Amino acid sequence: MKDDIIRMSIQLFEQKGFSSTSIQHITQALNVTKGTFYYYFSSKEALLMDIHQYYIDDLLLRQQEIIKSEGSFTEQLTRIVEMLIFDIGRQGSYARVYFREMRHLSEDHAVIVKEKRRLFRIRVEEIIEQGQAIGEFKVGLVPKLTAFAILGVTNWSYEWFDSDGDITSKQLATQYTAFILQGIQS
Amino acid sequence: MKDDIIRMSIQLFEQKGFSSTSIQHITQALNVTKGTFYYYFSSKEALLMDIHQYYIDDLLLRQQEIIKSEGSFTEQLTRIVEMLIFDIGRQGSYARVYFREMRHLSEDHAVIVKEKRRLFRIRVEEIIEQGQAIGEFKVGLVPKLTAFAILGVTNWSYEWFDSDGDITSKQLATQYTAFILQGIQS
Repeated sequence: MKDDIIRMSIQLFEQKGFSSTSIQHITQALNVTKGTFYYYFSSKEALLMDIHQYYIDDLLLRQQEIIKSEGSFTEQLTRIVEMLIFDIGRQGSYARVYFREMRHLSEDHAVIVKEKRRLFRIRVEEIIEQGQAIGEFKVGLVPKLTAFAILGVTNWSYEWFDSDGDITSKQLATQYTAFILQGIQS
Repeated sequence: MKDDIIRMSIQLFEQKGFSSTSIQHITQALNVTKGTFYYYFSSKEALLMDIHQYYIDDLLLRQQEIIKSEGSFTEQLTRIVEMLIFDIGRQGSYARVYFREMRHLSEDHAVIVKEKRRLFRIRVEEIIEQGQAIGEFKVGLVPKLTAFAILGVTNWSYEWFDSDGDITSKQLATQYTAFILQGIQS
């Protein structure tokens, strides 16, 4: 049931926006009582925080595994880009709620999510720095700006990419990793 | 006064979101009556549409001038990327409202804005195609995906770039045009 609430709320948040979706909209769409909702979540904001935490924690965990795998820095970066694009292809609504609705988190919650997002970006920066140090990547790049550029290419696809359309996630990942690597490899 | 209403509403929409900002919030912040608001805008949604129209019309006009200038395709692309980054540096709040709140436009209005956004992207695609045809850009690129990648790198900066921080718009534009051109030039 908790998963059903999350799934339905993501659908409604995407269509109507977080502010215009009430707990009643969610419970009515699922045909359950408000009591059911409050059994799992103390508020609509707590539900939004759950969505954000789940999304970023899952990404951080998989990113950590990629880094631990000790492939070349090029391989690590490629796998991170693929992971982000496949996720957007598979669960675009989730990604859109994650990116668009963060400002509706409470101050305390937003700080936690921002710190985790920052960690994700810092790890990309570190891959770039290490790749530069051993000559895999161009030395002229500013790692911070390059990390943002890479995340821009991938994250922006949540705005337009529809994996049911004429482009598959695989094609998109192939083009984008090639584009990014040509921009940074020595 | 119309400009004051737009300026204040952008500030409030950015802080609180479009849905959570009422016309009363806007008029109170400006210390004017609701009548003043309705003299210029028939509704809050009409105001949002004005913001969207102004933003995209202005970009389309300047993009057209760049294309008419008949520089090389590399130069045209460079100037478009610079334009987008300088705009985000100069008027970040405007950009954030433009990107985040589009789903609050009415169906009829959203269609108009989407069509204009599409035109902006199509023109970038055309520059890439023409550059490919004369050997300026790599032939292996899919123009549509490459246009989205370029717009991703630049547009994503509205999420994080603060031109008052330690990076100037000029530095960002220089790094990003280099990054993009290395990804696409033959």
